[in-house]
Amino acid sequence: MRDFLPADKARRERVLRTIRDRYRVHGFDEIETPVMEDYDRLHAGIGGDNEKLAYNVLKRGLDADAIRAAADDPASLTDLGLRYDLTVPLARFYASHRAELPSVFRAVQIAPVWRAERPQKGRYRQFLQCDIDIIGDGTSRAEAELVTATLDTLDALGLEGGEVRVGDRRLLDAMLEAFGFPADARPGVLITLDKLDKVGPEGVTAELRERGADETAVMAVARHLDRAAAAASGSGHALTIEGIRAALPDGMPDEVVAHLAGIGDAVAAARGLRGRDAEIPLRFDPFLVRGMGYYTGTIFELAHPSVSYSLGGGGRYDGMIGRFLGQDVPAVGFSLGFERLVDLVPSGEDTVADAVVLVHDREASVDDLLALKSALVGRGARVRLEQRTKNLKALLERARADGFTAFATVAPGERDAERLEVKSLG
Amino acid sequence: MRDFLPADKARRERVLRTIRDRYRVHGFDEIETPVMEDYDRLHAGIGGDNEKLAYNVLKRGLDADAIRAAADDPASLTDLGLRYDLTVPLARFYASHRAELPSVFRAVQIAPVWRAERPQKGRYRQFLQCDIDIIGDGTSRAEAELVTATLDTLDALGLEGGEVRVGDRRLLDAMLEAFGFPADARPGVLITLDKLDKVGPEGVTAELRERGADETAVMAVARHLDRAAAAASGSGHALTIEGIRAALPDGMPDEVVAHLAGIGDAVAAARGLRGRDAEIPLRFDPFLVRGMGYYTGTIFELAHPSVSYSLGGGGRYDGMIGRFLGQDVPAVGFSLGFERLVDLVPSGEDTVADAVVLVHDREASVDDLLALKSALVGRGARVRLEQRTKNLKALLERARADGFTAFATVAPGERDAERLEVKSLG
Repeated sequence: MRDFLPADKARRERVLRTIRDRYRVHGFDEIETPVMEDYDRLHAGIGGDNEKLAYNVLKRGLDADAIRAAADDPASLTDLGLRYDLTVPLARFYASHRAELPSVFRAVQIAPVWRAERPQKGRYRQFLQCDIDIIGDGTSRAEAELVTATLDTLDALGLEGGEVRVGDRRLLDAMLEAFGFPADARPGVLITLDKLDKVGPEGVTAELRERGADETAVMAVARHLDRAAAAASGSGHALTIEGIRAALPDGMPDEVVAHLAGIGDAVAAARGLRGRDAEIPLRFDPFLVRGMGYYTGTIFELAHPSVSYSLGGGGRYDGMIGRFLGQDVPAVGFSLGFERLVDLVPSGEDTVADAVVLVHDREASVDDLLALKSALVGRGARVRLEQRTKNLKALLERARADGFTAFATVAPGERDAERLEVKSLG
Repeated sequence: MRDFLPADKARRERVLRTIRDRYRVHGFDEIETPVMEDYDRLHAGIGGDNEKLAYNVLKRGLDADAIRAAADDPASLTDLGLRYDLTVPLARFYASHRAELPSVFRAVQIAPVWRAERPQKGRYRQFLQCDIDIIGDGTSRAEAELVTATLDTLDALGLEGGEVRVGDRRLLDAMLEAFGFPADARPGVLITLDKLDKVGPEGVTAELRERGADETAVMAVARHLDRAAAAASGSGHALTIEGIRAALPDGMPDEVVAHLAGIGDAVAAARGLRGRDAEIPLRFDPFLVRGMGYYTGTIFELAHPSVSYSLGGGGRYDGMIGRFLGQDVPAVGFSLGFERLVDLVPSGEDTVADAVVLVHDREASVDDLLALKSALVGRGARVRLEQRTKNLKALLERARADGFTAFATVAPGERDAERLEVKSLG
């Protein structure tokens, strides 16, 4: 868990404002839920491995007997926990407030989550998630709106060139069936395939053999991994009927292929790229898995040429809302990896045009200084008062690091802002 | 703990943006700390009564023996807690990062805190605090900057007419000594005086008698309460040397009176009200107590004519930083009561000029809809797609409640945004 100093915090807030504003114009409505949820809800099996990483909150007012009794039932010590993702809270929120929400609900949530992981580079125990979700639309329009809004947000952040890899849990399953993996072996095969980026095709086939998979099936996987790698070294598989078919064995379900191709078409239309397949920033990746067990269909991953890791991802989870609501509602979401993103965003303009440091002597009149400050603030500037130190250069350099763009030295007795000589810190 | 639906969340974010921007131009730098702090730090006696209200986080990986042993030592179950205020984290932050901060550090923190209170109207278990603090400046300039920035922020929110009541812990103590209360009785007397708003002057004198106070002392309090009430029914005591003296018994410390009057002068200068004492939005309130035990000097409370309760407050806590740093550093802070404020702010303009609902038929082409949406978004509008329902009026009314200002019906086959007939939602 980290402290954020002024320069970092200002950068984070600037990036958040862009994300918030772009998602908002794309029709996503921001909501907020409490950071704590009921323990039982956080541990209902929806959160997968993240459930084990939850921070649990001690019940208030436990007496010695209750604590002693909890030795055999540790869960009785806790009734609340910090959320480990924004999806479980969203499902709970939707089930609670459905009557007050539009029939197709486009939600944006920008909020911290917590996981009790061993901290490592790029992983934190408290980190910010930016999720958009569309609940109540089972068509490919939902995926297309998520992708369009996300790519537009990347563009607005100065990160043009984002590309979304798209897969589908149903196609993966049909493909593994066609390769000859029995149904009960497929979840294990998915876990292995999810390591493709880390261990490469050879690592995957080796692990499949360790799992005792039939050699014909392993070879079929290897063949399709080779085919996918060859396509990726070119421009990848286009997210069109033809592109998707080319990556798959025969006999895959038509309606799923059509759903994915529909996403490609709609994103092309939204970005003015109809008929220019090669330029559409979507690629079909038949082996895209992503960890979460609740995905039921489309799976996304956001790539950017400047980094080797993904900047976000998501997928369709049509079964989850039903667990809270008792009635199935289609849902699909996309999560931006804010902590990864924020470091990539080019330094941008401050929202305030002028940022002025007023340097004054120890003897300066407090009243005059505050009048001068107010006059500059009134003109739209950001103002900091600084008493002159021996090392004026160091003082000004720190101010520049904090985003100040100009300074003025206040002469003794000066109280007229018009007469300040404002110099650039450039 | 509450969920925020889109309309509420949009309002909150709009108000936060104004607060953040105004404090920033006044030279306050935003920082952020983790929501969890070490248990020991949260329970070091600085947080007063709030320490008892902290949510504590269960240690990870406790085994049955550790739980059984905790029956005699419940604190051993926990190592972290959710912060109950932003002041303890700020003091810890400053002690950790002092070398990287300006010599006078003006901090703004806008973040949630948690208290395990019984929920009641206007009190929540999770609520947002907006704190500004100045660390490293012991002069009245610090108080004047806090007050100026706060009043300007209220103005920017459309809440002109804010007034700050100012007292001083040192004057209160000197006054009680002059009235004849012995030193060891004064903390109890302060607790009674803090109830003045609730129980009135008669309630206060009655409770002082119950505490066994000397009748001469009780009568001295009663006289000064009457005097304060009379002044408050007029325009109160001006925060000038004369105004302050008029409210106090003789023999009060000159340097404290001068410090408070200095705040009044500087705020007057900042707001262009030099020499117009009656218009300066500051009043001296000799009996202002406020709960926190860590205050050492100036005490603030923010009042507004539209409400009877305070909208925020703060004070000087010159002793606290030293407890973390081992070296005394002056500090003073002001906290805006965001949850109270947000309901008072008049409805304002959205940051987006146009917000358009595109109503379409079930058969509309997804590609065309996304192209139309992108065209409008590209022109700066906020856009929501809505499939036509039998009750179009209800659909449009909900959209209006969500802040949409216009709608257009998409004709079958339409893909040219120029030809949309956009109508006001009036």
